Amino acid sequence: MTSALPAAAFPSSPSAIALRAGKRATLGVEQKLRLDCGVELGPFTLAYQTYGTLNPDKSNAVLICHALTLDQFVVETHPVTGKPGWWDSFVAPGKPLDPAKYFIICINVVGGCMGSVGPTEIDPATGKPYGLNFPVVTIADMVRAQAMLLDHLGIDSLFCVIGGSMGGMQVLQWASAYPDRVFAAIPVATAARHSAQNIAFHEVGRQAIMADPDWHNGDYYSHGTSPHRGLAVARMAAHITYLSETALHRKFGRNLQDREKLGFGFEADFQVESYLRHQGSTFVERFDANSYLYITRAMDYFDLAREHGGVLANAFRNCRSRFCLVSFTSDWLFPTPESREVVQALNAVAANVSFVEIETDKGHDAFLLDEPEMYKVLDGFLEAAASARGLKSRK
Amino acid sequence: MTSALPAAAFPSSPSAIALRAGKRATLGVEQKLRLDCGVELGPFTLAYQTYGTLNPDKSNAVLICHALTLDQFVVETHPVTGKPGWWDSFVAPGKPLDPAKYFIICINVVGGCMGSVGPTEIDPATGKPYGLNFPVVTIADMVRAQAMLLDHLGIDSLFCVIGGSMGGMQVLQWASAYPDRVFAAIPVATAARHSAQNIAFHEVGRQAIMADPDWHNGDYYSHGTSPHRGLAVARMAAHITYLSETALHRKFGRNLQDREKLGFGFEADFQVESYLRHQGSTFVERFDANSYLYITRAMDYFDLAREHGGVLANAFRNCRSRFCLVSFTSDWLFPTPESREVVQALNAVAANVSFVEIETDKGHDAFLLDEPEMYKVLDGFLEAAASARGLKSRK
Repeated sequence: MTSALPAAAFPSSPSAIALRAGKRATLGVEQKLRLDCGVELGPFTLAYQTYGTLNPDKSNAVLICHALTLDQFVVETHPVTGKPGWWDSFVAPGKPLDPAKYFIICINVVGGCMGSVGPTEIDPATGKPYGLNFPVVTIADMVRAQAMLLDHLGIDSLFCVIGGSMGGMQVLQWASAYPDRVFAAIPVATAARHSAQNIAFHEVGRQAIMADPDWHNGDYYSHGTSPHRGLAVARMAAHITYLSETALHRKFGRNLQDREKLGFGFEADFQVESYLRHQGSTFVERFDANSYLYITRAMDYFDLAREHGGVLANAFRNCRSRFCLVSFTSDWLFPTPESREVVQALNAVAANVSFVEIETDKGHDAFLLDEPEMYKVLDGFLEAAASARGLKSRK
Repeated sequence: MTSALPAAAFPSSPSAIALRAGKRATLGVEQKLRLDCGVELGPFTLAYQTYGTLNPDKSNAVLICHALTLDQFVVETHPVTGKPGWWDSFVAPGKPLDPAKYFIICINVVGGCMGSVGPTEIDPATGKPYGLNFPVVTIADMVRAQAMLLDHLGIDSLFCVIGGSMGGMQVLQWASAYPDRVFAAIPVATAARHSAQNIAFHEVGRQAIMADPDWHNGDYYSHGTSPHRGLAVARMAAHITYLSETALHRKFGRNLQDREKLGFGFEADFQVESYLRHQGSTFVERFDANSYLYITRAMDYFDLAREHGGVLANAFRNCRSRFCLVSFTSDWLFPTPESREVVQALNAVAANVSFVEIETDKGHDAFLLDEPEMYKVLDGFLEAAASARGLKSRK
C-alpha cells in the first residue's frame, strides 16, 4: 500500500543534454543577454529545431513558441520519450503549417531542459550545473533570447509567431516588443497576465518539488538524486487544470481500474487515479524539476500591462501585426474572458484582430489536439496572411 | 531560497488525543460496527460535542455532520488552534440553529483525528497507533457509527441532520439509510457521488502525503516523524478548490506580498502564494496526515446510486424526511448540477424538497461563511419544519 510514484528521473549530465538537444547555437558571446532581473547572461546556448526551407526573401519564417513542459520537437520523434512530435498534426503537409511552404522554427525556452541554457546546464563560473544559481527569467527574457537566435540565423522578420498557453504569452510579448518583426501573431488559449488562481496552482507544484528532500535546495545534480516524487505530484496537480471536468467525466467518470469492486485501500481504484499517476511518473522521465520551477515562475511573472503603465493597449501601440486569437469554451486555466481582454486592448489601438472562441469540452489541452474548427480558423487566417505577405498559396 | 513549509506537526500521542477530544463515548462493545470493507470494529471511541438541551420528547435533536477537515467543535474555542468554532455564526442565539431551542450534536467522523477512532488511535490488537492498519471506511460507515452514538445517547429520531460538503454526503446517507430517524435533512454544497475531477484532486493530495519520506508507509508515529510537508502541499492544492477564481482575484489578484517589486526568486512574491503557504503550514498543526488519506478516500468512494442499483431515486424510496438543498453559483467543487441531480431523484419519489441556488462569488467555502441568503433560507425551512414537528417557535 505504497505510493505509485516513479523511481526513474530525468538525466541531467552534459552528455545526456547534448543527446537530447538537437540543433544548438551559442549566443551572447559579444553582446550578452540582459535579463529582467538585471543579470547579464552569455555566452549561452539555445537549442532549436527547424522544418522546411527559408525562401530567398526570408519572408516565410514561422516561429512556434512552446508551452510550459513542451519543447522544440514539434514534429519529429522526441529524443527522450520516443513519442511523436507534440504538434505533428498541425505542422504537416496539407495542414495549416505546411513545411513545404514555411520555414518553421521552434526554440527551447531559456530556463528549459532540452538543451537551452537553464538550471540543468553547466554554469561556466563554477563548472557545475546552475541549479538555483540560474537567474530567474521572464517571458520577455525568453523572447529576447529567441530574437538573438533569429539574428544569428539571419532572419529579420517573422511571417508568423504562434503558440498556445505559455507559447501564447510569448506571442503577445513578441508582438509587443518587436512590432516590426512580426507580420502575423496567433496567441492561442492564453492571457496577457497570469491569474491569481493560476499562480496558486503553480505555487502548489513548486512547493511539492521544494518539499521533496531529494531537491536539496536545487542542487540535486551534485547529490545524485532527483526530486521526482515532488515533481510527479506537481505534474498531477497541473494536469487536472489542463482538462475540463466534463472531459474527465466523459473519459473516466467513476470507472474502476482493472478491478470489479472498490479495493478499500490506497492503490489506484479509479481510472482517473491511475491516469494521473501515469501522467506524473512519465513526466519526470522527460523533465527537470528546477526547470519546472523556473518556467512556472516566468509564467507567474507575466503581466504585459504592468510593463506599460498598467494599460494593456499601450503594449500594442506600435504594433502593425495582424492577430488571430483563439480560446476554448471549456478552458478554465485560460478562460475566454482573458483572451477577450487582449482583443479589447488590440481593438483600442485599432489593430487588425480576429478572435474565435471554439466550442469544445476538452479544456485547456484542446490547443494541442486535432480540433477541426481551430484548424479551419487558423488555416484561413494563415492563408490570407500569406497572400498579403506575397507568399505563394500551396493550394 | 527554500521551501516555506512548516516544521511543526500534529501530535498523535494518546494523551494529546485525549486533551483535544472533548466528550467521548465507547461503542461497539456488545455489537461491533460492521464496516463496508467487511471488517468489524469494536470497541471503538467516538468524540462529540453537544450544545443546548434535549427536550423531554427527545424531538429537538439536530445532528451537524462536519466536512473533511472540520470536527465536533462547532461553537466553542478549538482545543488545538484556539480559534472560534467553525460554525459559531450559524449555531448561536437568534441564529438558524439556536441552542436554546435545539439539542445540537456534532460527532467527529470515524477515521478522523479529533478523538474518534481512526489511524491515529491505538489499535487494541497491537497497542500501537493503527496507521494504515486502520480499515478503509466509507460515508455509510461514518453514519452507522453516528447512529450507534445516538442509540447510546437514547436519541431515536433526529429533528434535523445538516451538513455541507462531506457533511452533506452524510446527510444524504442518513436520509437514505435511516428514513425513520430523520425528520428534516439539509444537504448543503454537496453531491450524491464524488466526481472524477474531485477524485483527481484528492489523489494529488494523497500522493503528496505518500511521497513524503516522513510518511513511512503510514507508520510515522513510531518513527517520530510526520509527513507534514506532503500534508501541507495536499492542503494547498485542496484549498484552491474551496475558493472561486473570482474570489481569489478579488482577494489577491496579482498583489505582491510585503514588497514593491518582484523578487526574482522562489520566495512568496505574490499574496496568493503567501496565503496558500499559510493555509498549508497551519493545517498540519491541527490535522493528521493519515486521517486525510482515510477521509478523502471515504469521499471518493461515496456513490449513493451505486448502492441502489444505479438509480439514485431508489436511495430515497422509503424516505419521509423533508429536504432543503443549497448550492452556490461559484462552487466548482460541488457545482449546482450535482445538487440538481439529488433534487430530481427526490422529486422522482415525490419527496418533500426545497432547493435554493445562492448567488455568491465565494466558491465552495460559502457554506462556512455568513451568507445572509443561506441563513434566511435555512432559518425559514427550520422554522417551518419545527412547527410541523410541534417544536415551540423561539420567536
